[in-house]
Amino acid sequence: MSSVIDQNIKVSIFGESHSPQIGVVMDNLPAGLPIDMDRVLAFMARRAPQAASYSTARREADVPQVVSGLFEGHTTGTPLCALIANTDTRSKDYEEMRAKARPGHADFTGFLRYHGQNDYRGGGHFSGRLTAPLCFAGAVALQALEGLGVTVGAHILSLGGVWDNAFDPVDISAKELRAVSGAEFPVTVSPVKLKMLEAVEEARKDKNSLGGTIECCAVGVRPGLGSPMFDGLENVISRIVFGIPAVKGIEFGSGFDCAGMTGREHNDPFYMDENGMVKTKTNNHGGILGGISSGMPLIFRVAVKPTPSIASEQDTVDFVGGKDEKIAITGRHDPCVVPRAVPCVEAALALGLLDAYLAPRPTLEEERR
Amino acid sequence: MSSVIDQNIKVSIFGESHSPQIGVVMDNLPAGLPIDMDRVLAFMARRAPQAASYSTARREADVPQVVSGLFEGHTTGTPLCALIANTDTRSKDYEEMRAKARPGHADFTGFLRYHGQNDYRGGGHFSGRLTAPLCFAGAVALQALEGLGVTVGAHILSLGGVWDNAFDPVDISAKELRAVSGAEFPVTVSPVKLKMLEAVEEARKDKNSLGGTIECCAVGVRPGLGSPMFDGLENVISRIVFGIPAVKGIEFGSGFDCAGMTGREHNDPFYMDENGMVKTKTNNHGGILGGISSGMPLIFRVAVKPTPSIASEQDTVDFVGGKDEKIAITGRHDPCVVPRAVPCVEAALALGLLDAYLAPRPTLEEERR
Amino acid sequence: MSSVIDQNIKVSIFGESHSPQIGVVMDNLPAGLPIDMDRVLAFMARRAPQAASYSTARREADVPQVVSGLFEGHTTGTPLCALIANTDTRSKDYEEMRAKARPGHADFTGFLRYHGQNDYRGGGHFSGRLTAPLCFAGAVALQALEGLGVTVGAHILSLGGVWDNAFDPVDISAKELRAVSGAEFPVTVSPVKLKMLEAVEEARKDKNSLGGTIECCAVGVRPGLGSPMFDGLENVISRIVFGIPAVKGIEFGSGFDCAGMTGREHNDPFYMDENGMVKTKTNNHGGILGGISSGMPLIFRVAVKPTPSIASEQDTVDFVGGKDEKIAITGRHDPCVVPRAVPCVEAALALGLLDAYLAPRPTLEEERR
Amino acid sequence: MSSVIDQNIKVSIFGESHSPQIGVVMDNLPAGLPIDMDRVLAFMARRAPQAASYSTARREADVPQVVSGLFEGHTTGTPLCALIANTDTRSKDYEEMRAKARPGHADFTGFLRYHGQNDYRGGGHFSGRLTAPLCFAGAVALQALEGLGVTVGAHILSLGGVWDNAFDPVDISAKELRAVSGAEFPVTVSPVKLKMLEAVEEARKDKNSLGGTIECCAVGVRPGLGSPMFDGLENVISRIVFGIPAVKGIEFGSGFDCAGMTGREHNDPFYMDENGMVKTKTNNHGGILGGISSGMPLIFRVAVKPTPSIASEQDTVDFVGGKDEKIAITGRHDPCVVPRAVPCVEAALALGLLDAYLAPRPTLEEERR
Repeated sequence: MSSVIDQNIKVSIFGESHSPQIGVVMDNLPAGLPIDMDRVLAFMARRAPQAASYSTARREADVPQVVSGLFEGHTTGTPLCALIANTDTRSKDYEEMRAKARPGHADFTGFLRYHGQNDYRGGGHFSGRLTAPLCFAGAVALQALEGLGVTVGAHILSLGGVWDNAFDPVDISAKELRAVSGAEFPVTVSPVKLKMLEAVEEARKDKNSLGGTIECCAVGVRPGLGSPMFDGLENVISRIVFGIPAVKGIEFGSGFDCAGMTGREHNDPFYMDENGMVKTKTNNHGGILGGISSGMPLIFRVAVKPTPSIASEQDTVDFVGGKDEKIAITGRHDPCVVPRAVPCVEAALALGLLDAYLAPRPTLEEERR
Repeated sequence: MSSVIDQNIKVSIFGESHSPQIGVVMDNLPAGLPIDMDRVLAFMARRAPQAASYSTARREADVPQVVSGLFEGHTTGTPLCALIANTDTRSKDYEEMRAKARPGHADFTGFLRYHGQNDYRGGGHFSGRLTAPLCFAGAVALQALEGLGVTVGAHILSLGGVWDNAFDPVDISAKELRAVSGAEFPVTVSPVKLKMLEAVEEARKDKNSLGGTIECCAVGVRPGLGSPMFDGLENVISRIVFGIPAVKGIEFGSGFDCAGMTGREHNDPFYMDENGMVKTKTNNHGGILGGISSGMPLIFRVAVKPTPSIASEQDTVDFVGGKDEKIAITGRHDPCVVPRAVPCVEAALALGLLDAYLAPRPTLEEERR
Repeated sequence: MSSVIDQNIKVSIFGESHSPQIGVVMDNLPAGLPIDMDRVLAFMARRAPQAASYSTARREADVPQVVSGLFEGHTTGTPLCALIANTDTRSKDYEEMRAKARPGHADFTGFLRYHGQNDYRGGGHFSGRLTAPLCFAGAVALQALEGLGVTVGAHILSLGGVWDNAFDPVDISAKELRAVSGAEFPVTVSPVKLKMLEAVEEARKDKNSLGGTIECCAVGVRPGLGSPMFDGLENVISRIVFGIPAVKGIEFGSGFDCAGMTGREHNDPFYMDENGMVKTKTNNHGGILGGISSGMPLIFRVAVKPTPSIASEQDTVDFVGGKDEKIAITGRHDPCVVPRAVPCVEAALALGLLDAYLAPRPTLEEERR
Repeated sequence: MSSVIDQNIKVSIFGESHSPQIGVVMDNLPAGLPIDMDRVLAFMARRAPQAASYSTARREADVPQVVSGLFEGHTTGTPLCALIANTDTRSKDYEEMRAKARPGHADFTGFLRYHGQNDYRGGGHFSGRLTAPLCFAGAVALQALEGLGVTVGAHILSLGGVWDNAFDPVDISAKELRAVSGAEFPVTVSPVKLKMLEAVEEARKDKNSLGGTIECCAVGVRPGLGSPMFDGLENVISRIVFGIPAVKGIEFGSGFDCAGMTGREHNDPFYMDENGMVKTKTNNHGGILGGISSGMPLIFRVAVKPTPSIASEQDTVDFVGGKDEKIAITGRHDPCVVPRAVPCVEAALALGLLDAYLAPRPTLEEERR
């Protein structure tokens, strides 16, 4: 089930970097969700290659065509399929990849996995281009969640060593999340943007690339969502997030910092707020305890590696010929994928949360009414 | 599917902290695996509560009884079930938990999730005790992997701010992994052990607890194992690892450090070694590219939060009565679960890897012979 | 996932005919279901070997021990595991089976499937004894369904050529279903019982065995339950029903008779009843249209083959030695399994229906409240 | 997972009768399968509406466009997606269906299931048109199976009370299967065709429709394929077969006839054939014992109900208005879908068998080499 999210919601992604179309099928979507296609497009545009220095020169309109599952503006409840055309493909750029492994890419491992039968052009099914259908699916999930009062947002926490301010894990609001998500370059503090863009530009000139971290948050999640053990929110979210190429790590709440803390520091004391809701004073648990939402902001961070496609010469091998080689990657690539990965991470979270909302009912009480 | 690993191998874990028995069913195990029960017991003993200052005073023999799926010393291929008795349960220790949330625990979220019907005693199904059947399953998977030339090992990378040396991600050998895994207190550098134990003892005296990080590695994994997108090695391993209570983060290879690196630094150059095998000079990719094993050591780290059960008084709520409360946890608890979590992490990796080996065949060539 | 029902409810069955215990884990059960263990026992007793001429001489108390997932008489929502002891095992009866295939049994195919590693004693995991945990799971599901107003019942429709009256597919009531299900020998017309028992006794004396058909029905099923294509009620129910050994066919509503009917005869005309409910005048559709319940009685029939274990001599092979052989089965066996298969079919239906009730919500409206 | 086959092979079908396109994604296909598109087209043409009296007047070219997963004529191993255009849609034919239930159709149950949000035009996702992508997937699976020496074929066993000769369950050959499958109107005995066509023509003139039975067989299946309990060949095949609209029953081997047989008659005696292969003299078991293939021809039959769309007036309801109504179906429909259902049944079997071939390996021996 390599390209299928097969939880309660089934999301099947298909296509290759150079196939005529790529796309996604969403099965088990609830019926009757109004889908605003303009907002889907706006969300996908955040991931699409842009006319910015940090982005690949490849241009794709990335207008999804919904071919099923949508009727009179609402989901039907039967499978929703969307297609996205690949138009600006230059296959000859990639002839060299048939046998030469680009360092940091899956050319060699893909060759082994598929016994040399995979479409190697532009990375084939391993291409970051496949995050376009993921973002489409995420955009649909986000609109479903919005109807439940859930708001999702993410920002670039660091890029090439430049750090943005972290979200306030206790007091972050839906409004702030919407503001940062809606920005063209999602950071919480304006001056940071300039420094980050400078770092990217410098890397580009140096035929190099940069990595970064993304922080993602959801507020308004119903407490009591998720499950213990292997189907908890961390399990499901991390499984989807690692489907985004270039992600090397994920941490929830305090994350790796917890390792240096004591229990007294780390435990989040509970209290009753003025509305009689159970809250915690701090949020080291990141809104999840025992795999289940607590009602506090759900918060996690992911590490995104520097784009492996760099223009400077690198050592590699010809894995067919079995000999050492040199490679310099001349295709069109982003010197930093972190900005475009932000909506991908939001999409992954949205799909994980929607899945939790669609889980088998905790009791049969609703059915008894 | 809260407590089911439902990949190619199906692992269903059941039981509560105070149920008469806990256990696990493994379905889709290959037939004909010789299982050495002494080694299973030795592996599980590493997780069991020990007569050490860092461990809970609860004593459980933790001798699993295999009730099916094993015949004449080999797996039958039909479901293997193992039971572990809960003997030393003191339910009255936990009466208070019916309505009072222990900070850092799932008492409150579990109450919401299960509408107050869950067994709250000792954390019920959320208890760390459920890692005993996980370790049983992992011990079986480890023996299966051993037959394929795969060796798995982990150590305490940090504990309460004291750091062990990291594994060498390029040159770590099966022998070293076996040595560190076999140790009673798994660190690579001896003096570190003493410092860590001192830190734990200090925390215990202070009615406090400590967190840490665990580094885990596998060598001998066949290159070409895994899949792109949602069924890759990172996806499957992280999903299982977050099934271990107290884990707050996971990172593969360079992990979060990748965010501060450039592509030139981070990309691992390929080369042909003297045996004509494709290798990389560095191993920032942690043995996984595009979700698929490269043949280099598979390496990852997890963050383990400090034990939430601490003896000092904490603020909390009575979530039934809806009022603020104080709590001091008087049960028997580990001041640091990191040492006992080490085999759990190995078990999670072993189950994830065995799953990848059991994935649908990449081609039908074998069937054609 | 050979022995796992992995729909919304996960049911993992384990054990062999001669293992110390057999059992089942039910994951994703709703929380808060009151479970009446006396009624579970009464249901399981219908499947258990009985002191009747048509039944095996093997005696098993078949008292399930619930080891998890039940607290203060209610399901907790976390995995429920039940164990059943195998006490009256006579392994030496089966030594011959190591290499000799009993005609009509899975000795040979099981040997191939598991490369000779399976536990061959008494059929191992293929034994009809594994329907005991299936019936336990079904008994739990039946109590859950009862709380939703659903009643399930089945009877022996035919046995050795003797036919009972079929259910009235339009007017069958919950009361009638309960009456027939509760009977020791479930037929709708009393005199039929005597004739069937005579036929069985005759077969037994002749060292032979008999097959039959079972008709099963559910009333009170909420209309709108199920799904099109591969997750419809027929798909899910048939998948579970074929998990009962000896079942060779299943048909819903008019079943195979539909092949000889015209559309005008077969179509069930809709009408509004006095309560404003949509009903059909006939019920050839068996309560399911497009995989989804219509509100009419859900009705299906299964074919059960004659017990393959017969005392008279049969031709067979020694599949290890590779030569023709003779076999006469001297173990303890039922001359007809149909009566004991009746609760198994009810259990299968109950699990299939409960699964449909636990499917992801059709809309998110409930969540919006 | 309503429209997903989620076994080892994942098949996700999407589209509605009047959506611009319908299609299918196949995930987990083996890499390197040569796909002959001409033969795929020839297979799909058997299902497509034809210029014959028994077929709907709707005309669709049904030329699938493969958009991913196929490279240089071979499967890549990554998801294969095929699209089929809906061109000849006359939506206004169906306006009446918004609230009027066509007897025998899923209009009413679909309305309930999807809370009135489903696309009702032409039956939407419930339309028989969705068997086109199923047949595409089956055509791919058939080519994969052919490479393993497996041949699949089916014929019309009965239609409107006219019976063809059944396959010889012991001696049926691959050659015979190919011959009958390749025929335009698949029956084994020529004169039967004429009688069947007469019956259809008579029904058409009478504004009526006919049902029938289809017999399907596979030879060359490797013995030892499948699993006990819920993942056996009967379970998996029946689950897929009931995904074909109009199927009301399925029986394997002797099927419902077994109910009237004795064990002595029904048991298939084993013997060693001249090549040292284990065979059975009869084949009441239909090539499957304990869910696992025996090496004998795999054989089953399905019942197909008469087309519910008939031109004569029928009683029904307006389920929105809540009142009784009349309906006469004026759209374009087949007076008998049985001939077109034949390739659908073959496709279902092929997908079920390919799934079994892709199951987790029974042992790890192959990996050890």
